[in-house]
Amino acid sequence: MMDGVDSFAVADDARLFPGAAYRKAWDDRLTALLAEAAIRVRQGPVRPVIDLAGCREDLAGWDFEMPVPAEDVLAWTIGRLESGMVHTGHKRYFGLFNPAPSFPALCGDRIAAAFNPQLASATTSPVPVEIEAHVMRAVARRAGLGPEAVGHFCTGGSEANFTALICALTQAAPGFAKRGSRAFDGQPVFYVSRDCHLAWIKIAHQAGIGRDGVRLVATDGGGRMCMQALRGAIAADRAAGFVPVMVAATAGTTNAGMIDDLPESAAIARGEHVWFHVDAAWGGGLIASDRLRGLLAGIEMADSVTIDAHKWFATTMGCGMFITAHAAALTNAFSVAASFMPSHAPESDPYTSTVQWSRRFLGLRLFLSLAAVGWAGHAAHVERAVDLVRLLARNLLARGWTVANDISLAVLCAEPPAGGAPVREIVARVVRSGEAWVSVASYEGREVVRACVTHGETSEADVEALTAALEAARVKAA
Amino acid sequence: MMDGVDSFAVADDARLFPGAAYRKAWDDRLTALLAEAAIRVRQGPVRPVIDLAGCREDLAGWDFEMPVPAEDVLAWTIGRLESGMVHTGHKRYFGLFNPAPSFPALCGDRIAAAFNPQLASATTSPVPVEIEAHVMRAVARRAGLGPEAVGHFCTGGSEANFTALICALTQAAPGFAKRGSRAFDGQPVFYVSRDCHLAWIKIAHQAGIGRDGVRLVATDGGGRMCMQALRGAIAADRAAGFVPVMVAATAGTTNAGMIDDLPESAAIARGEHVWFHVDAAWGGGLIASDRLRGLLAGIEMADSVTIDAHKWFATTMGCGMFITAHAAALTNAFSVAASFMPSHAPESDPYTSTVQWSRRFLGLRLFLSLAAVGWAGHAAHVERAVDLVRLLARNLLARGWTVANDISLAVLCAEPPAGGAPVREIVARVVRSGEAWVSVASYEGREVVRACVTHGETSEADVEALTAALEAARVKAA
Repeated sequence: MMDGVDSFAVADDARLFPGAAYRKAWDDRLTALLAEAAIRVRQGPVRPVIDLAGCREDLAGWDFEMPVPAEDVLAWTIGRLESGMVHTGHKRYFGLFNPAPSFPALCGDRIAAAFNPQLASATTSPVPVEIEAHVMRAVARRAGLGPEAVGHFCTGGSEANFTALICALTQAAPGFAKRGSRAFDGQPVFYVSRDCHLAWIKIAHQAGIGRDGVRLVATDGGGRMCMQALRGAIAADRAAGFVPVMVAATAGTTNAGMIDDLPESAAIARGEHVWFHVDAAWGGGLIASDRLRGLLAGIEMADSVTIDAHKWFATTMGCGMFITAHAAALTNAFSVAASFMPSHAPESDPYTSTVQWSRRFLGLRLFLSLAAVGWAGHAAHVERAVDLVRLLARNLLARGWTVANDISLAVLCAEPPAGGAPVREIVARVVRSGEAWVSVASYEGREVVRACVTHGETSEADVEALTAALEAARVKAA
Repeated sequence: MMDGVDSFAVADDARLFPGAAYRKAWDDRLTALLAEAAIRVRQGPVRPVIDLAGCREDLAGWDFEMPVPAEDVLAWTIGRLESGMVHTGHKRYFGLFNPAPSFPALCGDRIAAAFNPQLASATTSPVPVEIEAHVMRAVARRAGLGPEAVGHFCTGGSEANFTALICALTQAAPGFAKRGSRAFDGQPVFYVSRDCHLAWIKIAHQAGIGRDGVRLVATDGGGRMCMQALRGAIAADRAAGFVPVMVAATAGTTNAGMIDDLPESAAIARGEHVWFHVDAAWGGGLIASDRLRGLLAGIEMADSVTIDAHKWFATTMGCGMFITAHAAALTNAFSVAASFMPSHAPESDPYTSTVQWSRRFLGLRLFLSLAAVGWAGHAAHVERAVDLVRLLARNLLARGWTVANDISLAVLCAEPPAGGAPVREIVARVVRSGEAWVSVASYEGREVVRACVTHGETSEADVEALTAALEAARVKAA
């Protein structure tokens, strides 16, 4: 019965665990294929150009009944990806905050995959846990939080913001941990700008307080949460029997890159004795820059902070960070003991202080990246993005456009002059051309063209090309 | 001011985005370094042997003030990982369900990182979204769920099980979405075996129903949820005003690989009109095997199922799957519209039907793996693991040990004969030797030695070596 257990009766090509020579050959081949694809991606259209119906037909043929040669599998896959996605790796992708990943981050991702450590417990993966903790301390310190601040890596802003809400709820009502939101005397509520990332609405649902628990506070006409409206909303809620648990300021709105008044938000939260969270998922990258980090003043007063390394720190996708000044809040929220785990150490085992249990070694990407280029290298990355967006703004202003937002960060919200095509048509034309990728956003209730510099190699020439594409789309006959 | 924006005034080595020649050189170097490390890992001890205090001192020196040459960064990192973790990539790792990743999965991970698509929206990443949907349909069909079943990739079992609970709660009380668990007439509760994965306790806390919402149902003396106890618990809860919302059966307990009675669990859930979930995070891998999939009979009746591709499908970490027969339940739970998103299509945009928002292209790993080796290749992988654990069981029985659990899957819970070292001491000695890695588990209240075959290249010789190591540890003088 055990005969043959040691070898598969098939060639290396159809093995899950092929030999070393085969691996080397295919690692080399993949290096070449990906490098060639990267060149084509950069020279081709930013947008997808695939016939999706044809792709679906192709896919239906992959029934996984018979092994397919690696050559065919990889060629099909890479070819379809080349034509079948918005290329965040294209220098003229001026879209949402999905970076072209940095090379050190790619190396970190590959090493983490090869060793594949289990980040649930420090007993299992002592060095990976230590490396992540070191990076988190460095990030927290750089953000200005105190020496006792801790943090961990997670999937991204949604999970980090969810973590903040669970910490806030657990602290606000002693009964929440055991009885959930029914332990509150009234409906728990928290406060965000109406221009926050709307994942907060899903988060409120998921946290068991319900979507009504999100108070979308009016903005101040400049894309920032209105402090007077925030104070008013809290007072009205308290009077009506609701239970405020958190103020969450946004440091870099998705639409416009606006940063809420962090010192005042902090003061209001302190005065109300509620948790103060800063969602700096994108804007948090500014901490690297001595020139720009002052824009985040007040973040150091946060009870917790969200920063996505996969946004302005240019790692591959799925590398969020949650930082808090209160380590005990995390273990109060997430600790549990299980007989099958090799240890139960709330001060070091991530499974006792985070949403996840089994987890990939996410932090290596940022470690390698910071090690390779230092804070200064990341500072240059964020500063050039801001400078390039300012160049774009000057270009458009000179052509009669209006800049809607305060572009202290790397997002521009622009309105075309009257008489040409409207915003949606301009964006559709630019995207369709494949020359660049921009999007429609909403700024203080108005539709605007949104352009954000995310790629680390976007140049002045690319900004000039975008300027020309926007102008051509604006004046083109319908 | 814009001068020099196009180039960093540093060498390629300290750049986030170096040139193509540099990338090629370092991709090749990394291929070689990782291959060499893999050989050393397989020949060395399974357990970490690092001086952790020294590693912490080292880490303190990484202040990210100055760029460090890539050669030094990578050498330090790979060296520390080699000595600083339990090596799931070692053939004598007989531990928890963290696989040595298959080579196709590693290729998929690398391609996903290079293209770095954003899996939030189908407009942004049409082909990646289609590929994932295709894999999920194939997995759901193979598990026996109907043609309308859908699914998505996530971080792992915790997130998938959390998703199930949120779906169950959202369906059970029309007010949950807006008002959270306060919308229920009584405390919502759900039922799992007391030998379930205890992440369920964190999950109940996070879902805002509180840890009291988890009913840990007694086991039947054989490691499975007792059906009579389940019926009794539901009846008692209803009588006392609690609101049952879900029965979650476990298909492959962490401790012992036991599979709850799925048909009977399903029948009870149906009779009570509550959600029926199957946590097959590990055991779900059996669907690949025509010989063994019958063990999961009843799973086809599930409202939702958890399967982790990063367990028995041997992908890299962080590749969970959630499958449900009810697509509308997902959009009811997770849909939200945001002005900055390029589309809002609940039938195709993952951000409207999943916990996460921005997400990595996780599914490519399983797609490449299934494409390369087919279901048959994965069948061979799970069948050999089961066969090898049976060999281990026979070996130990012949030496006077007792097999505590029904080893239909690839986990053995064994008790040593009286007169030698106790379980904890045996496990500590084996782990300390570095010869193999096993753990202590709890089976029906008794401490046992837990050994699980997870590595795709573990051989009969490795099982013989483990047998010898366990025996040596048992008889060794204290």
